[in-house]
Amino acid sequence: MTQLFSTVPGFRFSAVPAQIRKDGRIDVALAVCDRPATVAAVFTRNLVRAAPVLVAAERVRAGSARAILANSGCANACTGRAGERATLESTAAVARALGVAPEMVLPASTGVIGAVLPSQRIASSARALVDALSPEGHPDFAQAICTTDRWTKVAWAALGEGAQAPRVLAMGKGAGMIHPDVGLLEEGGSAPHATMLVFLFTDARVERDALESALVHATERTFNECSVDGDTSTNDTVFAMASGASGVLVPAAALARACESVCDALARSMVADGEGSEHCVELFVRGLGSDQDARAVARTVATSMLVKTALCGRDANWGRILGAAGRAGVSFDPSKARISIGGVPIVEQGLGVGGDAEQAAAEHMKSPTYTIELELGSGPGTARYLMSDLGHGYVDVNASYRS
Amino acid sequence: MTQLFSTVPGFRFSAVPAQIRKDGRIDVALAVCDRPATVAAVFTRNLVRAAPVLVAAERVRAGSARAILANSGCANACTGRAGERATLESTAAVARALGVAPEMVLPASTGVIGAVLPSQRIASSARALVDALSPEGHPDFAQAICTTDRWTKVAWAALGEGAQAPRVLAMGKGAGMIHPDVGLLEEGGSAPHATMLVFLFTDARVERDALESALVHATERTFNECSVDGDTSTNDTVFAMASGASGVLVPAAALARACESVCDALARSMVADGEGSEHCVELFVRGLGSDQDARAVARTVATSMLVKTALCGRDANWGRILGAAGRAGVSFDPSKARISIGGVPIVEQGLGVGGDAEQAAAEHMKSPTYTIELELGSGPGTARYLMSDLGHGYVDVNASYRS
Repeated sequence: MTQLFSTVPGFRFSAVPAQIRKDGRIDVALAVCDRPATVAAVFTRNLVRAAPVLVAAERVRAGSARAILANSGCANACTGRAGERATLESTAAVARALGVAPEMVLPASTGVIGAVLPSQRIASSARALVDALSPEGHPDFAQAICTTDRWTKVAWAALGEGAQAPRVLAMGKGAGMIHPDVGLLEEGGSAPHATMLVFLFTDARVERDALESALVHATERTFNECSVDGDTSTNDTVFAMASGASGVLVPAAALARACESVCDALARSMVADGEGSEHCVELFVRGLGSDQDARAVARTVATSMLVKTALCGRDANWGRILGAAGRAGVSFDPSKARISIGGVPIVEQGLGVGGDAEQAAAEHMKSPTYTIELELGSGPGTARYLMSDLGHGYVDVNASYRS
Repeated sequence: MTQLFSTVPGFRFSAVPAQIRKDGRIDVALAVCDRPATVAAVFTRNLVRAAPVLVAAERVRAGSARAILANSGCANACTGRAGERATLESTAAVARALGVAPEMVLPASTGVIGAVLPSQRIASSARALVDALSPEGHPDFAQAICTTDRWTKVAWAALGEGAQAPRVLAMGKGAGMIHPDVGLLEEGGSAPHATMLVFLFTDARVERDALESALVHATERTFNECSVDGDTSTNDTVFAMASGASGVLVPAAALARACESVCDALARSMVADGEGSEHCVELFVRGLGSDQDARAVARTVATSMLVKTALCGRDANWGRILGAAGRAGVSFDPSKARISIGGVPIVEQGLGVGGDAEQAAAEHMKSPTYTIELELGSGPGTARYLMSDLGHGYVDVNASYRS
């Protein structure tokens, strides 16, 4: 959606360089609500969770918060008690500068794993962060949370007509270690690493349960159905904050739709920005026994290294797609399979259609975005998945990430 | 094991070029037993199975066979009835030239998917194949089945002392689409693509059930615990043939040990030869609730793109290892985790040990082979897995495989 708005009433944003990153770029971001905001969150279901995830999961239970403190450059993961202390200290310093209780500040971190967050550097920057707060400061916020991202990721949605309608602003980061599996955390776990961070801000009036439902609905249908490299991060976090400043009580369904819309935009942006990737492919799987079966097939195809390298090579190598589907642990009859790429049927009844079909499909595969459709029977189960291709760039980024 | 033998009594081998491959190299291989041999086999459990897998699975039920006909250059997968016909025609042609029943010839194919095997070319080569048969022809056999392999894969084991002791010869091929999941096929499926082929020949006297048990035991502990790219092929096949020519009845346990020994050697050779890979890493996972849990963790770590690229970069990036373990769907306490690379402890109690440990570990990571040990608790569950690294070579091979 085109950006119709420049602010979300009730919220201010800022970012400063605090030398968490080595390159001197802005790396600490703050979002503040001028009143206690309704808050909901989902976190990585990886068993290994970073200190900020554990602290935030605890704080978000209260249902309201005043601020989000996010940093790039250090995931503060696999850092044990020292990491937890660093998260507590950095949020406490910012809370002091804001004049709010420490529990009202929600932390999120992304970056290198195994290093303890240098909380003193954030504490030293707390005053500057607060002084820089501005209703129009969100582009800095979006920039400061980036790691290997090639571009910032921002999306807007309107909750009604007109300039005074409530709105949703979403900002995110993520390009690698992207295979989100986020949900409500029942129990805390222990320590670990970071990648997908997403922040939703709305001025709608909304109950906590409705906000949480909307967030779960949206993340389940967007982030949990996309993958860059199949590796679920230890720091994945999605926060939603509602200031209520518009005074407009938004129906739950409308809120869920708006959240899904902005999360979908961010998921597409992340997959398109997948490390070294040149394509964001939308994969549709249909005809299986259940949606769960269809998603299992979609996930297996989307994370297959042979499929991903074929996409990189613009090669309509449907045998790899069918081969990956066949190892997903889901029952179907391969002799019924139909596959289309970019709308061009290349497999019917489990067999290549021959002729120029593969060549025509390969033409579509030159586009930055296109679809792959996989029909595996006549059952009701369907799934949609966003996937990237695997090229030299991914190896470049990840074989030398820390050196 | 050093090659002490040059023949397996009862067996002869040959290979010829039949223009199945585009490069004119030998591409059709024949192994023949001078009497009906006891036979057992395991096949890919991918739902999508190539025509030769379906035909061979049917024929191997009889428990005896006279010959194996293998080809590279064409997997004859996803080829439906035409593919099945081609497999039947090519084995029939070779059976005629040998003067045996067609059902006594077991087919195996590897190569490009979606193309029907040009059976006429094999039929035209049948006489030359039979004429070339020699007790010492196995190196040609091993060469002819190669596809992207950089070297042939051969292993020997002795079943007792002395030059007259029965022996096992194993030949295999495989470098990509290597994530075997082979077992006994209860029911045939339908059509699809090819990669790991393994052939065991022994002159031991052995009952069919003992041979099958030994083969299942060996493959379960070797091929089913190794991965190059996580993609299970549609053509994976392991045949074992026993001529009985030695006249020596071998105890089941000794046979199982010998089969495991040669299969382990071939699995290591395949992973070391993994497309674009420079390392064969032996991953040990211990301390989980069950062996099944341990294998799930091992498989997840071994197929993680972030772990594999770290190995390529000789980067002791233990956060990626722990992060992958944490998404395996297995319960453990990350704060108890211990990780060693090349015997150097780099994580204790879930935390990096610091100092020069990572640097010392990284030194080991320059070797073509080394170990990674992952201890995740005090449970009895253990697993071992062979994995490769992910580098530019893999992208080179697979992003342009068919063009």
